[in-house]
Parts: sequence; structure tokens; C-alpha cells
Amino acid sequence: MKITAIHSTSVPIASEIRNAFIDFSRMTASVVAVVTDIKKNGKRVIGYGFNSNGRYAQAGLLSERFIPRLMQADSTSLLNDAGTNLDPHRIWACMMANEKPGGHGERSVAVGVVDIAVWDAVAKIEGKPLYRLLAERYNGGKVDDKVFVYAAGGYYYPGKNVKALQDEMRKYLDLGYSVVKMKIGGESLADDLKRIEAVIKIVGSPDRLAVDANGRFDLKTAIEYAKAFESYGLFWYEEAGDPLDFQLQAELANHYDKPMATGENLFSMQDARNLIRYGGMRPDRDWLQFDCALSYGLVEYMRTLAMLRENGWSPRRCIPHGGHQMSLNIAAGLGLGGNESYPDVFQPFGGFADGTPVENGQVPMPQVPGVGFEAKANLYKVMKALV
Amino acid sequence: MKITAIHSTSVPIASEIRNAFIDFSRMTASVVAVVTDIKKNGKRVIGYGFNSNGRYAQAGLLSERFIPRLMQADSTSLLNDAGTNLDPHRIWACMMANEKPGGHGERSVAVGVVDIAVWDAVAKIEGKPLYRLLAERYNGGKVDDKVFVYAAGGYYYPGKNVKALQDEMRKYLDLGYSVVKMKIGGESLADDLKRIEAVIKIVGSPDRLAVDANGRFDLKTAIEYAKAFESYGLFWYEEAGDPLDFQLQAELANHYDKPMATGENLFSMQDARNLIRYGGMRPDRDWLQFDCALSYGLVEYMRTLAMLRENGWSPRRCIPHGGHQMSLNIAAGLGLGGNESYPDVFQPFGGFADGTPVENGQVPMPQVPGVGFEAKANLYKVMKALV
Repeated sequence: MKITAIHSTSVPIASEIRNAFIDFSRMTASVVAVVTDIKKNGKRVIGYGFNSNGRYAQAGLLSERFIPRLMQADSTSLLNDAGTNLDPHRIWACMMANEKPGGHGERSVAVGVVDIAVWDAVAKIEGKPLYRLLAERYNGGKVDDKVFVYAAGGYYYPGKNVKALQDEMRKYLDLGYSVVKMKIGGESLADDLKRIEAVIKIVGSPDRLAVDANGRFDLKTAIEYAKAFESYGLFWYEEAGDPLDFQLQAELANHYDKPMATGENLFSMQDARNLIRYGGMRPDRDWLQFDCALSYGLVEYMRTLAMLRENGWSPRRCIPHGGHQMSLNIAAGLGLGGNESYPDVFQPFGGFADGTPVENGQVPMPQVPGVGFEAKANLYKVMKALV
Repeated sequence: MKITAIHSTSVPIASEIRNAFIDFSRMTASVVAVVTDIKKNGKRVIGYGFNSNGRYAQAGLLSERFIPRLMQADSTSLLNDAGTNLDPHRIWACMMANEKPGGHGERSVAVGVVDIAVWDAVAKIEGKPLYRLLAERYNGGKVDDKVFVYAAGGYYYPGKNVKALQDEMRKYLDLGYSVVKMKIGGESLADDLKRIEAVIKIVGSPDRLAVDANGRFDLKTAIEYAKAFESYGLFWYEEAGDPLDFQLQAELANHYDKPMATGENLFSMQDARNLIRYGGMRPDRDWLQFDCALSYGLVEYMRTLAMLRENGWSPRRCIPHGGHQMSLNIAAGLGLGGNESYPDVFQPFGGFADGTPVENGQVPMPQVPGVGFEAKANLYKVMKALV
């Protein structure tokens, strides 16, 4: 068998929202299709992938380096020993040949998108949902039938007032979510406290609300917010400072003993390891948000999980950024703590399989071979158009 | 005044060499031209930039994000207060708008290339060599008329034996270099020691030889090499382990008290700061090799220099990777310790102004407005073709 073609396109995932750091009005994502010569039930197996929001499409890197390397490789070198399926690890190594170490950004997205498509194809060739394949290969067959998801919203957008924020959060509860997240750091602490208390009124309890500063604060501001939050007991306080300022994160833990979360802007095992080594994160309460779609895919994410285990961290402490089905499969198959979810934004990429309602903050896993893109009609329409 | 156009192209800098990590047979670089509407002596002012070797051209990111942002910006927002010249800091902020924090790779190259071209234009508009402008603006006018450079070579290539390595090093001495560098880690320690001793015979003394493992070693191997090197007293032992494995670097310092060097694969102030915070580097003997061309340009490099000063490091401990004229200008104008030089490889990008021979390991600064690209004929030919 072999890969016969890899197609790539860039699509807008623009919306009028913003967080404390960037606006999303020109955000894009890459979509790729890995076409194989295998047929299942009379249909050609095609693996699909896309990157989650926040770091832009990677058309250039895909066409300049990563797709050509795969298409120029000896096709048997990309297969498992039996030659019956693609080998994601060998494919990863082929893509990363002649890439220097360090500098983990952008290319981590390009490789991540292809890696997702490869895993999608691998599971389709085996005729299984990806989460089941992952559980069988790497987790003693143990599958979570449902995965905790939280509704990530509360973005800033023009004209949005506290009432609109409350309405948004009420809708998430009506959809079945038990935990919601909102952005902070766009204006003042006083303004944020007003917004937070308004949302707590809707969700009923502070431990059902996570807040996200998107790396905006310096240490002084981060501590001011921490002190103001201490009495609430929020679900988590996310990415207070620059994602690479591990010293800030570690010092903040001296001022805030409630749960914190970070990691969505670290894109390799090495960067994640530095967070664990130097960031003062606490394995009994904090959360790790590394997103495989932006971070060289699942092959690298498994290296990160192994590193975490070596450092005394359970995969249950991982709730990835990105709100996509790839992380949902990893969560169900490798025992993560849950997954982000964007009920409204970043369409058609946000959200999971159609007709799988969230119940009590959990989403059931679809019984579809592969990642499950075919079960999300608006997303599959974009993917199918590629081939 | 305004920027009227920004042109970009990708060019091969392929060669048959390899280090312990990658081969360079498909290496590329970006070249950009920032065209202004200013005329000096009847000639339109155009700033040029390119990225040094190792991280590939960035055609995609330049055309997808960074050039459009500048061309769509209000042109006066990119100028100094008087409106008489470009403002590199404002241009940098414009390029990085709507970019999330963290993930410093690839885009750091794209931004770096444009930043160099902007500084080239700024100095040309002021009618001065860039190093002089930098010294006047940021260093009390203090200029180094000559800059220490070392000859970086000793790459692996097919059929290269010890004799060829010695011949190469002899040639560097003949060219006027006093310190040379060679790659290690391609084969075994025993093989490397043979190669190193053969080169020491040529250069006369171990403190005239630096060795570079290109991030190849795990801690055990790094320490084995360190123990074998201890008695030599080499000029430096470079990038033993993964560039983000600060713990390895710090531990290695417990086993090697001679000079070490690293940093060429850290591409932001934040990553450089983590090396300083956690890497155990010693300001009295070690060397820092951050390369502005790969790291968001001089605007970011000045943030790195400020961070170093805050942490008790002199700019004299910086000898940047890359062997290009931009770092040479920074070295002369901001008081760095020197610069890398590629006498033979990575042409036409390696090397400095034509007709400026290296003497006693130092190169004189050309009296040409801007970075000095016009004084290097083979490079200027590539750049000129862009417009």
C-alpha cells in the first residue's frame, strides 16, 4: 500500500471575537487529506486533518517541506513492518528529517495537521474508531465511553456587555455543559471581577467557571488577579503570564493555591518538559493544555505523556486546548482528563460529532472509523472538497 | 515617506555538507527587499535582508502574514515621530499583531529577515553604516573598528578524511583566522578525538579550536565527551544536547569547567532567558550564540541584550551564529564579542564585504551605508535581482 497524494488547503476560521492578546478576524487553519490506495467497503481510504485555532494555516511549510518529504520518500519506508498500514512514527521521522532541534512553532502545526490525517487513515484502515485503536495499542484496551468537556467562550467582541456574556453562559448550560470558561485581561481587574461575578450568578458556583488571561499579565498583575480570585475557588486560572515565563508561573503558585492551567502555547515535548521542570505546576491540582494539533501531532503528544508519567503526572491532568475531535479521541483512548469545546466559535472546526449531545458536561464517543470527521457534516464537507 | 513594496524570494543555499543532526543538501534561505520612496544621491533606498542557514526559507509565512500586515498598515504608523525614517520597533509591532505568545520558530525567521531589511533601509536613509547608527543610538557612540571572527567549518561530507579536514583548517589560518570550529558527534568519540587531535596539530593549540555537537548528545554522551575534552582546553564545546534541555546543559557544567557555547537554536528573548535562568551558563567563561536573523531580528535581539545585562551578562559574551553582515554590524555597534564566519560554505550568504581580509582573526568594518550588502558582490547580485 502507499500514500498516493496529500492535498492541503487554507481556510478562514475568522470571527469577530478577541481574547486579551489577539483578535481572530483573520485567523486561518490548514486542512489536509492523505489519500491512500487502500479501499474499504469499496471506498478509498482518505485520512483528514486540520489545525485548531490560534496559530494560522501552514500552507507554505506544508508545500515547501513536509508534504514533499513524504511524497519523495520510499513508500514502503512509511509503512508498518507487515506493510499493511501506515506507520505514524515512521512518517513523523520522515517529515522531520533535516529539521534542526529547537524552534518549536509553526512547523509543529504543519506536522501536526499531517499527523492527524495519518492517524485518521490508520484507524480507518483498521476499521475502528481512533480512540479504540489507541486504547488497544497503548492503554491496555481501556476506553472512556464519555469524555468531560467544558464550554470555552466568554470572548470579547464589539458591543458585548455583561448581559450578553450571561446569555452566552446560560446557553452553554442549556446545551449540557457543567463547566464554562471566559476570557479575562481585556480591560481592568475591576471590570473582570464584575464580569466573573455575573457569570457565577448564571453557572451557580465558582468551581464551574474557568478564567483565561491568554498570557497577558506580568507577575505583579498576575498576583493581583490571583489574590482577587483566591476567595472564589474557580475551576482554574489559565495562562496568567507569557507561556515561556516559567519563573512567573512558579512564583504565582506561591500566591495562589487553587487550580491553575497552562500549556496551550508550548508545542513540543521539550517545551512541555521545561514547564514541568521549572513552572511549579502541581500534579495534584493543576491542568495541562498541550494541543497535539499545534504540537507535531499525536506521535509527539505520546512523548509528552511519557515525559509526564516520568515526572509523576497522570494523563488525567491533561485537558487539551483546541476543542477538536483528535484530542477527544486521545482523551477517550489514552485516559486524559477531558477536552476543550467551542460550542459556537471557530466553525466548522469547533465541536464534535453531530447528534452527540453533551450531558452533565460529558460527550459520548461516536462509533465511526477514524477520528470521526465524517460524523460532523459541516466539517466533513470542507474536507471532502479537498480531494 | 513610506514603504512602497516588499519583495521576497527563496533561494537554495544547498551544499553537500552535514553536521551531526541534519544535512544541508536542500537548505534554502529567504531574501527580501523593502522598497521605499526615498531617494539618496538619485538612487531609491531599498533595504535588504536574508536569513542565515539552518532553518529554511519562509516564503509562505512572509506572503501569508508578515508582508501583508506591513503593506496594509497605515504607512505613517511605521515611521518615526518626525516621519523622516522607518521605525524598526513600530514595524516589528505591526508584523507581530495578532500573533500569540510562545511558539518561537519559523515565524521568528520570517520576521527576522524583514527586520534586517528595515534596519538596512534605516541606516541607508541616514547615510551611515548600520554599526555606526547602532552605536550612536544605543551604545554612546562607541564603535569597534574590527570584530573578532572565527572560521566555522569542519563539516562532514562524503569522502572527507582527516587529511581533507586538516587542509581545510590550514586554509582558514592562511586566510587570517586565528580560531577555527569543527563539527563533532557524527561518528564515535574515538573518531572525533582523532579528528580533533589532527586539527590541533594544524592550528597549533587547543584554545584555537572550537567543537560543535549540534545538539546531538544525551547527557551521558555529553559528559563522556566533556571528560575527554577536559585536558585539551578547547576554545569552546558547543551545543552538546538538545537546545531546550537546559537541565542537561546545567548538569554538564558540573562536569566541565572549560568554556561552553550554545543558543543558536533559541529564537526569542523568552527562550534565551530560560537558558540564562536554568542552563547553568557561566558569565565569566561561556558564550551565547543567539542569531538575530533567525530570531525576530535586531528589535528582539536588543530585548535579549537587555535581559542579559539584567542577569549580569556582558554583550561581549555574545558571538552570534550565522556568519552574516547583520550580526557583524551588531557586534561592531553594540559591543558583542565577535561573530561566526563561513569562509567557504553557504555562498553567497556566508562571509563579509569583499576585499576586507581577516587579519589576526579580526575583520575590519566597511564604510558603506546600511548593513553593507552592496560591498559583497555575489550576495548583492542576488538581492538586486529581487527588485
